[in-house]
Amino acid sequence: MSRSSRTVIRGGLVITAAEETRADVLVEDGRIVALAAPDSAYAQGWTADRTIDATDKYVIPGGVDAHTHIEMPFGGTFASDTFETGTRAAAWGGTTTIVDFAVQSMGHSLREGLDAWHAKAAGMCAIDYSFHMILADVNEASLREMDLLVDEGITSFKLFMAYPGVFYSDDGKILRAMQRGAANGGLMLMHAENGLAIDVLIEQALAEGRTDPRYHGEVRKSLLEAEAAHRAIQLARVAGAPLYVVHVSAAEAVAELAQARDKGLPVFGETCPQYLFLSTDNLAEPDFEGAKYVCSTPLRPREHQAALWHGLRTNDLQIVSTDHCPFCFVGQKEMGRGDFSKIPNGLPGVENRMDLLHQAVVDGHISRRRWIEIACATPARMFGLYPKKGTIAPGTDADLVIYDPRAEQTLSAQTHHMNVDYSAYEGKRITGQVETVLSRGETVIDRRQYTGRAGHGQFIARDTCQYLN
Amino acid sequence: MSRSSRTVIRGGLVITAAEETRADVLVEDGRIVALAAPDSAYAQGWTADRTIDATDKYVIPGGVDAHTHIEMPFGGTFASDTFETGTRAAAWGGTTTIVDFAVQSMGHSLREGLDAWHAKAAGMCAIDYSFHMILADVNEASLREMDLLVDEGITSFKLFMAYPGVFYSDDGKILRAMQRGAANGGLMLMHAENGLAIDVLIEQALAEGRTDPRYHGEVRKSLLEAEAAHRAIQLARVAGAPLYVVHVSAAEAVAELAQARDKGLPVFGETCPQYLFLSTDNLAEPDFEGAKYVCSTPLRPREHQAALWHGLRTNDLQIVSTDHCPFCFVGQKEMGRGDFSKIPNGLPGVENRMDLLHQAVVDGHISRRRWIEIACATPARMFGLYPKKGTIAPGTDADLVIYDPRAEQTLSAQTHHMNVDYSAYEGKRITGQVETVLSRGETVIDRRQYTGRAGHGQFIARDTCQYLN
Amino acid sequence: MSRSSRTVIRGGLVITAAEETRADVLVEDGRIVALAAPDSAYAQGWTADRTIDATDKYVIPGGVDAHTHIEMPFGGTFASDTFETGTRAAAWGGTTTIVDFAVQSMGHSLREGLDAWHAKAAGMCAIDYSFHMILADVNEASLREMDLLVDEGITSFKLFMAYPGVFYSDDGKILRAMQRGAANGGLMLMHAENGLAIDVLIEQALAEGRTDPRYHGEVRKSLLEAEAAHRAIQLARVAGAPLYVVHVSAAEAVAELAQARDKGLPVFGETCPQYLFLSTDNLAEPDFEGAKYVCSTPLRPREHQAALWHGLRTNDLQIVSTDHCPFCFVGQKEMGRGDFSKIPNGLPGVENRMDLLHQAVVDGHISRRRWIEIACATPARMFGLYPKKGTIAPGTDADLVIYDPRAEQTLSAQTHHMNVDYSAYEGKRITGQVETVLSRGETVIDRRQYTGRAGHGQFIARDTCQYLN
Amino acid sequence: MSRSSRTVIRGGLVITAAEETRADVLVEDGRIVALAAPDSAYAQGWTADRTIDATDKYVIPGGVDAHTHIEMPFGGTFASDTFETGTRAAAWGGTTTIVDFAVQSMGHSLREGLDAWHAKAAGMCAIDYSFHMILADVNEASLREMDLLVDEGITSFKLFMAYPGVFYSDDGKILRAMQRGAANGGLMLMHAENGLAIDVLIEQALAEGRTDPRYHGEVRKSLLEAEAAHRAIQLARVAGAPLYVVHVSAAEAVAELAQARDKGLPVFGETCPQYLFLSTDNLAEPDFEGAKYVCSTPLRPREHQAALWHGLRTNDLQIVSTDHCPFCFVGQKEMGRGDFSKIPNGLPGVENRMDLLHQAVVDGHISRRRWIEIACATPARMFGLYPKKGTIAPGTDADLVIYDPRAEQTLSAQTHHMNVDYSAYEGKRITGQVETVLSRGETVIDRRQYTGRAGHGQFIARDTCQYLN
Repeated sequence: MSRSSRTVIRGGLVITAAEETRADVLVEDGRIVALAAPDSAYAQGWTADRTIDATDKYVIPGGVDAHTHIEMPFGGTFASDTFETGTRAAAWGGTTTIVDFAVQSMGHSLREGLDAWHAKAAGMCAIDYSFHMILADVNEASLREMDLLVDEGITSFKLFMAYPGVFYSDDGKILRAMQRGAANGGLMLMHAENGLAIDVLIEQALAEGRTDPRYHGEVRKSLLEAEAAHRAIQLARVAGAPLYVVHVSAAEAVAELAQARDKGLPVFGETCPQYLFLSTDNLAEPDFEGAKYVCSTPLRPREHQAALWHGLRTNDLQIVSTDHCPFCFVGQKEMGRGDFSKIPNGLPGVENRMDLLHQAVVDGHISRRRWIEIACATPARMFGLYPKKGTIAPGTDADLVIYDPRAEQTLSAQTHHMNVDYSAYEGKRITGQVETVLSRGETVIDRRQYTGRAGHGQFIARDTCQYLN
Repeated sequence: MSRSSRTVIRGGLVITAAEETRADVLVEDGRIVALAAPDSAYAQGWTADRTIDATDKYVIPGGVDAHTHIEMPFGGTFASDTFETGTRAAAWGGTTTIVDFAVQSMGHSLREGLDAWHAKAAGMCAIDYSFHMILADVNEASLREMDLLVDEGITSFKLFMAYPGVFYSDDGKILRAMQRGAANGGLMLMHAENGLAIDVLIEQALAEGRTDPRYHGEVRKSLLEAEAAHRAIQLARVAGAPLYVVHVSAAEAVAELAQARDKGLPVFGETCPQYLFLSTDNLAEPDFEGAKYVCSTPLRPREHQAALWHGLRTNDLQIVSTDHCPFCFVGQKEMGRGDFSKIPNGLPGVENRMDLLHQAVVDGHISRRRWIEIACATPARMFGLYPKKGTIAPGTDADLVIYDPRAEQTLSAQTHHMNVDYSAYEGKRITGQVETVLSRGETVIDRRQYTGRAGHGQFIARDTCQYLN
Repeated sequence: MSRSSRTVIRGGLVITAAEETRADVLVEDGRIVALAAPDSAYAQGWTADRTIDATDKYVIPGGVDAHTHIEMPFGGTFASDTFETGTRAAAWGGTTTIVDFAVQSMGHSLREGLDAWHAKAAGMCAIDYSFHMILADVNEASLREMDLLVDEGITSFKLFMAYPGVFYSDDGKILRAMQRGAANGGLMLMHAENGLAIDVLIEQALAEGRTDPRYHGEVRKSLLEAEAAHRAIQLARVAGAPLYVVHVSAAEAVAELAQARDKGLPVFGETCPQYLFLSTDNLAEPDFEGAKYVCSTPLRPREHQAALWHGLRTNDLQIVSTDHCPFCFVGQKEMGRGDFSKIPNGLPGVENRMDLLHQAVVDGHISRRRWIEIACATPARMFGLYPKKGTIAPGTDADLVIYDPRAEQTLSAQTHHMNVDYSAYEGKRITGQVETVLSRGETVIDRRQYTGRAGHGQFIARDTCQYLN
Repeated sequence: MSRSSRTVIRGGLVITAAEETRADVLVEDGRIVALAAPDSAYAQGWTADRTIDATDKYVIPGGVDAHTHIEMPFGGTFASDTFETGTRAAAWGGTTTIVDFAVQSMGHSLREGLDAWHAKAAGMCAIDYSFHMILADVNEASLREMDLLVDEGITSFKLFMAYPGVFYSDDGKILRAMQRGAANGGLMLMHAENGLAIDVLIEQALAEGRTDPRYHGEVRKSLLEAEAAHRAIQLARVAGAPLYVVHVSAAEAVAELAQARDKGLPVFGETCPQYLFLSTDNLAEPDFEGAKYVCSTPLRPREHQAALWHGLRTNDLQIVSTDHCPFCFVGQKEMGRGDFSKIPNGLPGVENRMDLLHQAVVDGHISRRRWIEIACATPARMFGLYPKKGTIAPGTDADLVIYDPRAEQTLSAQTHHMNVDYSAYEGKRITGQVETVLSRGETVIDRRQYTGRAGHGQFIARDTCQYLN
């Protein structure tokens, strides 16, 4: 960026979590420096290197996807997006920040895992990125390392109540980690499923020949998600720690979060587009096609969707992330033919989130402001990225999306940019489309042309959670 | 206002319901036209007729007090503030819009009541104002009039489940009015207390010689507030209408609102500073001093305060208004010596609300942004004043307060500007004080000098409720 | 009865609310004097004037139907059973005690109403009977009369939140009556429907041409039953009085009772067979046949039945009574052709209750002991008839039924004994049938022959509620 | 017993869970053969070998204590009562049946544990006894053994969510055991505390020097009891199994049971006298005296007692057992000086239960019938002992207690018969006392003289749970 680069975005409707304002936006050196009434002499007097006409368009903050798994190892394979392909696809979909999960392996330090993730991401990203840390091996050493990571801007840690032998922590370890987080400001994220019980049901299902993908959904019961959410909440109360439950999919789990919130507890929940738009009907698709929809927590019967939308409206669920974790159908999902437990868990989605949630606006599930709140503003606050990310105000990063609310598109693997051979939403019609995307003032998508570059995106050291009061 | 008057407010922390931003604010011809990063060349280049230095100060939207009773008739007397004295006091307290309750009298039309209120307010107000309409006599004619009033910007109507023989409507009338509101967009406000049951308890208390002010609190039982709130909610469900419950004071009533909200119902609640800061301890003050604190719903035992703060944090309560309805102790409150039921119901408060809620920020009950949300932004949205009022953004009315968060003051009848001979908060120490107030760009309070004038304030025709999605 | 009449019932399974015991039962002079193990020398040595062989049969307490309306005036006509026909039908159905509702008319004393009821019943009844008193006109005089009636064994009083202008009491009157009941031991029974709101909906329905019987069900909304139940509960809390809600039909009302019970409040609920076995499907029967099923509270959609059965199992509902109030289809129900609001409210049922509830045992809804508890034991305790009625133990009245659990029957107006020209359960197949009935030791039904007589049945002065601890 | 032994109990008030009847009771050959009205010719004609005068006394079923730990190994020592001393003390206290916990040791079979328990009990007991089985090592072999034990009358199995490394089963094992129980009819009993989390808190407390007995109560948090109860309930739902939660002490755990019951789930709960009458105040007694009150779940703050009484009244708690597990203060409790985690867990109580619960009747917490229900009738039904035990009816075992409701006594280690050097209720005044006790017709306590003998008591093979419908 030379001396001083100026961009003006004129004529759009600026939408944030709180306001819908007709305003012109002035961007200078990667920051938003001013908003002005379009009919004011001041706004009209602005000069700029570049003017973007946003007439009849929305001007929204770039999306913040707080849950992705780039090149995540799972069951002997790796999620198929690299930081290069994944962040490029994110940009196409109007997301300008991702928070990916660095992985600690059993018997290894957090540092090793984090370094590996830094190495994979450095110089590869089209948009800004940060990391959560998966705590797979809770012990005295890794608890001490948590403090250091918080100081480095890794301010959130994920624990698993599922996947015994891989990521699973027992309740004692969970309590210890939560206590540490309460002390050092690290926010604890929880995969809430009772994995020990589920593994019994998996074993029984396979022994009885119930091996198709749909049994993945049957054994990972709603009650066992809700149970784990309840348990995590109680452990967090004992630890005096806030809690963030990832990928909530079951109505019963939403009820646990609502109950916690009625008590005034600092307990938060995220859901994902797949739980809002897909269901066990997809898991039951014939010819092993159901494998495309295998993720954990699993898709639920269609009736659960209403509870999720309800939770998003009442703010019992605060965030929609993607849990983007793509595996190709050919060669990867296929590993689980004849044994659903061997299907890599995960769906592609980082490119689709902003559009699907705009469709929810069109469908009347949420308001426009709530769209921005759950997809941009709250993730930024929750994970210490505010005010740089998630909103549009003087001084914030110029991560901006010009969104055409009337454009029509059809989601498809033919046209998406994620590195995966299928779309979970193949053929779905969407009203609304990203037109132009700025990341810190630089154009990444320009009227549906990719103009970004690997390496533009920078690592962001995050503050601790800013959503607690 | 001549050709074009420009004011710049520099160096403050701009706080809205959603953001806390260091920004300079440019005001032109009564509107906010731009916000800019203070260190940007653009902001620094602004010229203006007047520059306000807000260094170390907050720049906040003017308060919106959605519940006042100016010159309200009650029990043979009138609330002691006129529109001149009441709106001036409001301005002193950082409130730049009030929504007062015009009163329909039994056997009279809405029009008559509204006209009377227009006549009292016209040319008298220091700040902008609007009216709700009290529906005392629900019948075919008044239901038809509701439609006309909505068209004129009177978009909210209050019903009473208390005060049989005066304002009371029975459940059939309430249902009819709610149905009409559901059709014409008028939001129904409810005084939720079971007045028929309360009147039995009043009669019994007086018959038994329990005549002191504190019995006012005992007979107006929490359960009877909660019962009425529950009933109003069910009637609103039957009518398919949203509902706004005024002056919620009982923990049990908050629980009813929370339950409604858990169901996703469009049910909203307001509380008032007196319920947050005062209690039945005040009602029990000796020498008839308790009469100063007689209002309905009544003050509750101290334990209820926690439930109210909790409800404000969880957004089960959305708004803090004052229910400002002052009666002098001498000559007015004294009418009830020997019979608490003859004490005029109401407290002064329009001047104290913004300060008391800032004290709540200092005390840790709510965040700064929540302060602005419950006192400015949500009242504006709830009652159709948005975006003119309640926030700071390009295009909105320049109703602005420069607030000094570190100033110390002591509330007292000696220093307040309300036309009443006592303060409900006499001697209370507050951190924070209004320094300067702008109403549509004009200075009403200038560094704690009153520079406003009766007649500046204009009637605002309101849109229908903007808080419904 | 001469010197000493002795009956022995041998070989049956004696079922009470608490026990299922193989025991022989010895009856002497109208009382049960002993139970003995059938294989014991003592039992075998018993001599008697009469021996009833109950091998393969149940020996159960005679049913107690705590809610009947004999010759009840309604909308210009009268319920079609007299005390002679009604009590005879009751006996045929295994019920040996009814508690009928004496009616106070507006402007008249309780005494007048009670005397009229005594006059109608005296010398007419086949089985024992008692009265509740309907309090239609709550005033100082009728409140004072309550005390006298309690002393005479009329220990329960019914109030109506429905039927404005007829039986309706407003909340102030309800509170006064409840307070009086709390003082004199009278249990308050409540018809819980918000009649003021319902009457608005009736007027609107008729105005819009929705005049068929099924609209009776639509306007009397579940929410308005639940609201009234909630309100009655809160008023009872304020009064410090226990409460019994009659004819609960809505799932939402059961939820209110469950919530009260979770709080430990002395709040009780009754449902009726029509709500357990019939639904709005019946109300919608063509050719005005739906009128046969018009009663208030109304039949509900089929889904509500599960909540009622659930409530009976969890003891949130304690009693099943009939609300027996028969009107002939021809000439009576027909009064409401073209205007559902003119259909007399009520169904026949006193003869069917014990059989329908046994069918519920067969269907697995309740256990055998629970059958006796909800139909015999709890009504007896609730209304002060214990231990004379409702159980089988030494010293109790010999009101006994020999019940054949394997007999098959079909309910029909062709075969029933109620004085009404239709059956609400026409064609319904039932497993189980009353074989023999004793009332105070005298045989009223003998192997399905009526051997009773008008005048055997006596008025019972009841104690106050025995279910409170 | 010779040819035919007959006892008549005259003049008492016979109290069962359901009835209070003035009746004479005829006992023949160890069974109750008849009840008769005292004033009947039949009763007056009875002849007997022995007549017990119960005038002014209660005649109640012998108590059933479904939770004792005789000679239980714990932390290197053994509970101090043998089957001889323990059952004798039980008889002194009016309990005529105990169900003790046979223990499977890690790595051993159920059979070994059961055989050991049979060996300890055979020929030693003064009253009848049966066994539950503790499942410490859930594996394929022990699951198969469960079926065999059910066939032998060991129809209930206890799992632990606490005590990792000793009795603890993880959630997968719990699920498997519950599934097996659902199949074979075995009722699963659960020690519900999150032992993994508690062990972390114990370690931290000790590390910080918080070693006194009262910290036992602080680390075993109410929330961690409630969490475990909730989890057990959800696992039982997944398994389709009923559940019985032992020694519930926390208000929050009662709330979980109430919620389960509101859903209609077959979930039951037991509490113990120590939780009803003692509190953390006792745990905090100085000079290590608090150790006398160390048991798990721990005593709770006094406020929890109200929730337990409430639960007993609403039948959210169904049973009061003792968890009798005595350790002498000298030499046993003292093992934990300086480290509360080494204090053997358990209190004496088998002798005090019936009296303490009668005191609760006197104090107004429960009714007389509820006393018998929670202490006799429901334990008998819950654990398959009905109708032999738990009630008074023709054909049942003549396990009877003549109870003097007006006698005064003071509980004390000086006078009790349990083999332990302290009383948890030292000095407590009780109204009511056991006078005479029959076990299968034989007198064990005769007007406060012990007349029983080791070896009279027999092992009872139990049916499966009879409380499920």
